[in-house]
Amino acid sequence: MPFHIVLVNPEIPANTGNIARTCAATGTHLHLVRPLGFDTDDKTLKRAGLDYWYAVNITYYDSFEEVQAAAQDGARFFFASTRVTKRYSDFAFRDGDYFVFGRETKGLPQELLDANADTGMRIPMTDKVRSLNLANSAAIVVFEALRQNDFPLE
Amino acid sequence: MPFHIVLVNPEIPANTGNIARTCAATGTHLHLVRPLGFDTDDKTLKRAGLDYWYAVNITYYDSFEEVQAAAQDGARFFFASTRVTKRYSDFAFRDGDYFVFGRETKGLPQELLDANADTGMRIPMTDKVRSLNLANSAAIVVFEALRQNDFPLE
Repeated sequence: MPFHIVLVNPEIPANTGNIARTCAATGTHLHLVRPLGFDTDDKTLKRAGLDYWYAVNITYYDSFEEVQAAAQDGARFFFASTRVTKRYSDFAFRDGDYFVFGRETKGLPQELLDANADTGMRIPMTDKVRSLNLANSAAIVVFEALRQNDFPLE
Repeated sequence: MPFHIVLVNPEIPANTGNIARTCAATGTHLHLVRPLGFDTDDKTLKRAGLDYWYAVNITYYDSFEEVQAAAQDGARFFFASTRVTKRYSDFAFRDGDYFVFGRETKGLPQELLDANADTGMRIPMTDKVRSLNLANSAAIVVFEALRQNDFPLE
């Protein structure tokens, strides 16, 4: 049972491509919630340099609710946001957890954060930036989860 | 005394730009060793979307030895590579540490790794990829160092 990354309406293909590469590197399942800000036809992926797209387990959805409905019973979802206070590294992650990230410009919908206040997670940062790059955020969280679980991938 | 990221001959401006953003987000000092695979004039940075360039403390060098010579006495250098075995998270990092990353296509020179065998650090990954994205690798290491030090930036 791997970890899961859920991208809700990602906008920038290079970010999703980098996240796909991280997923390939870690055996993480990638879940993409439409609409996406880019096409996923072969030509677009190739032009964006998304070489790892086909090394990754990717599932597409039309809403976040579809992701939840498709997950195993008891699956846990964690929601990354700059608008919450609990640090990502203060959670004890376990195999099978889902890490949910919003679009680059706006993050996750506020109502989704409100409905999941106990599992909102913040990556600490200075006030010099509005946010971290989306792909970097996903890598930071997945590798913290892997670290906590003694890197079950080698 | 912040953390330090050293990029030796980075090739892809978007990666260095993402790392600059991570540095701005974490108060990390960025050290760039020439030659770079891109220009750092205003026009190039703007075109590459490197909006955070001017929020970061950046120093340029012509060799890695110059970085070492400019560092404080006793500064510690850690070298990221897929060709070493000790995990990055097995080191106890402290404020002032330098994290050194090589070029995207080739990584760090083997002689530099050989000369610093005790402080080579590996980010664990499956064999499905050759490496992680450079910016993601830097973010993973810096945030592990921050986590170990209770995020001295908020």
